[in-house]
Amino acid sequence: MLVTDLIRKKRDGAELQRNEIEFLVNGYTRDEIPDYQMSAWLMAVLLRGMSRAELAALTEFMLNSGEVLNFPELPAIKVDKHSTGGVGDKTSLIIAPIVAAGGVYVPMISGRGLGHTGGTLDKLESIPGFNVNLSVTDFRRILKQCGAGLIGQTREIAPADKKLYALRDVTGTVESPYLICASIMSKKLAEGIDALVLDVKTGSGAFMKSEKDAVFLAELMVETGQRLGKRISALITDMSQPLGNAVGNALEVAECIEVLDGKGPSDLRELSLVLAGWMFFLGKRVQSVDDGRELAEQMIASGKAREKFREIIQLQGGNPDVIEKPELLPQASHKADVKSPATGFVTEMMCEQIGTAGVLLGGGRAKKEDSVDPAVGIMVHKKIGNRVAVGEPLCTIYYNSAERVASAASLIEKSYTIQAAAAQQANPLIWQIIGNK
Amino acid sequence: MLVTDLIRKKRDGAELQRNEIEFLVNGYTRDEIPDYQMSAWLMAVLLRGMSRAELAALTEFMLNSGEVLNFPELPAIKVDKHSTGGVGDKTSLIIAPIVAAGGVYVPMISGRGLGHTGGTLDKLESIPGFNVNLSVTDFRRILKQCGAGLIGQTREIAPADKKLYALRDVTGTVESPYLICASIMSKKLAEGIDALVLDVKTGSGAFMKSEKDAVFLAELMVETGQRLGKRISALITDMSQPLGNAVGNALEVAECIEVLDGKGPSDLRELSLVLAGWMFFLGKRVQSVDDGRELAEQMIASGKAREKFREIIQLQGGNPDVIEKPELLPQASHKADVKSPATGFVTEMMCEQIGTAGVLLGGGRAKKEDSVDPAVGIMVHKKIGNRVAVGEPLCTIYYNSAERVASAASLIEKSYTIQAAAAQQANPLIWQIIGNK
Repeated sequence: MLVTDLIRKKRDGAELQRNEIEFLVNGYTRDEIPDYQMSAWLMAVLLRGMSRAELAALTEFMLNSGEVLNFPELPAIKVDKHSTGGVGDKTSLIIAPIVAAGGVYVPMISGRGLGHTGGTLDKLESIPGFNVNLSVTDFRRILKQCGAGLIGQTREIAPADKKLYALRDVTGTVESPYLICASIMSKKLAEGIDALVLDVKTGSGAFMKSEKDAVFLAELMVETGQRLGKRISALITDMSQPLGNAVGNALEVAECIEVLDGKGPSDLRELSLVLAGWMFFLGKRVQSVDDGRELAEQMIASGKAREKFREIIQLQGGNPDVIEKPELLPQASHKADVKSPATGFVTEMMCEQIGTAGVLLGGGRAKKEDSVDPAVGIMVHKKIGNRVAVGEPLCTIYYNSAERVASAASLIEKSYTIQAAAAQQANPLIWQIIGNK
Repeated sequence: MLVTDLIRKKRDGAELQRNEIEFLVNGYTRDEIPDYQMSAWLMAVLLRGMSRAELAALTEFMLNSGEVLNFPELPAIKVDKHSTGGVGDKTSLIIAPIVAAGGVYVPMISGRGLGHTGGTLDKLESIPGFNVNLSVTDFRRILKQCGAGLIGQTREIAPADKKLYALRDVTGTVESPYLICASIMSKKLAEGIDALVLDVKTGSGAFMKSEKDAVFLAELMVETGQRLGKRISALITDMSQPLGNAVGNALEVAECIEVLDGKGPSDLRELSLVLAGWMFFLGKRVQSVDDGRELAEQMIASGKAREKFREIIQLQGGNPDVIEKPELLPQASHKADVKSPATGFVTEMMCEQIGTAGVLLGGGRAKKEDSVDPAVGIMVHKKIGNRVAVGEPLCTIYYNSAERVASAASLIEKSYTIQAAAAQQANPLIWQIIGNK
């Protein structure tokens, strides 16, 4: 088999056979196929697309390029949730305890924030002592003991994806929905899960700005998961404004604890309950999504989810007292309000810019190598549909260094559209549901 | 300027600016841009195409990546011809002496055969002693002295093309007409010529099998040449069967000498006269193409072209006696006829397979590193429209090693279509003319 023939085949829009995709993925992972051939193939994929069979094969061979976890010792179904990323998107920290408390296992492998979006690992690490770098042995033990574990991608999982992602990053081939799908699904399915709920974000703070693009990606991921034998559903959810009010690692953890306390912002609470409900349903713990949502509500009302989060924190080396005393989380030394320049209604937010403001404050990463300040961030007081008077705070900025506060504040102010009349209709929180129902 | 931004721009179908193309070509030539980024960009070019301005800029920066010859000491216009390659395509050896004899300078830099097509350098090297690897100083001296010189590409000419071509060869990006155009034109225009005649082949023995593809490439090359200030025309000519009768290096040289003697196959003679006529016209030696053709005929009839060829051979270290005694050219030790399996008319030839048969005999290269046997080849006795009786020779194979004669003979036999009735109409020798008229 010649690599150039396979590049040409994709270039000319033909469908690659399963063994041809295997040859490419394995050859590249083993350094037998050079970067310059793989990048030409990736560009051809980006411009020509893939069939569903090709995509499933690509995902499968990327998944099988490294260690694939499995947990035969666990007595119940293993389910995870994956979000395509957004601003203030912190549901993992709420859902994992809820679902584990309800009797479904959640082996969750997460990522770090990059660009305007946050990452679950960065949020968890704002809890003093919390260790996301567990060995597979420890991960397995904790998962068995408490029903959930939250770690970062190990070197052994999907090495093909790591190598391909690094190449895509420097060759203009990140944006292909096919390659995004294979990258996400290969990592997620290496977790040894039986089912998966996808939270595909759309709107001004998401990677997929349009609903159409989000639906297309969601359909690819659902079909790929199904072809690989998983129960899977995707929710297209709104990211036209931050989810909840907190943007910033420690601030977000505190907000998650509020939700687990039965309080917190209603949008964050609602989406967490819906996603947890789907996980219970796909995990065959309940007969319907509605039953799943009810069970999730019970886990919060009974305090079981809150206790589960304490248990997870403790097992992963963190200080569990943050549950009762969120002030133990890192605190920024200063704060400043961003005030409304006008009176009226918030009709639109450029949500990505709120995320970028958080990065400017030091709470996120512009480059992979950047370190993150866990304490800084933004509390959003006014969201779409809210009435605001001139001079009233839109957001409060929490910061440690005054250096970039002005530019962050300016970004935030500019991200708001304030008009005399409220918008006719707010965006729904959940746009569409795709997959197993 | 970021390479990934330029890759994305081309990927998304936008037009690159002149300075952006300069950045890519120069950065790649200086090893500052890695192969894996360049190959992604090349694939994006192949699938998205280029504007005429982008193509002219690409050609210009490739051309200027190395030495650009110029001949201020020469008193007349410098003109060259370039063919896209075919089977038995040997006009360069006839045209260069004719045009030089007629008073127009021909600084010709040629290539070697690859795949089913032959190359001018291989043909010249079948003349005992002929040296195609001249220094630029010697090339300049010989050109001044006799009006023509025929050499191979030096290391100094268009190094960007050398590097890009090697990358295209292994990344499935050879076939883009834009990249083909830039490759050909950057090398040709580095010769320091004022005008160029392109012989763009179409048909079963050409790279561009369809007339449409050939015309598209020709239009790209003509417009690119004009944008770079050259007088240029392209003839779309027939390659649905070998040109002339000889296929194989020494056999082809002998056939060229026949034409310069006023004999030889009519198609080869005709195309040579037309191309030489165009060179005289674009070289401003005559007022019209017809006058140019007449001058070319005079150069043959007077024996001046033949004498010029002798002079070129002598100056480049070859044995000029081959002109009078073609038997001094390398001779194959054996020959064998390929006989017609049927009686009827030749209606079609799969011309590429005739070329491939020549490669099988050792007369061409499957890989760049292969060496070539100058003596072997094929003499074609029956061409399209000819009547043939069963058992009559279609071709004669000249060979030194019996090893692959059977497979070559079989290829040749299968390449002929013989039917009871002759085709209604033969292909014209010249399909279209594009450019300066």
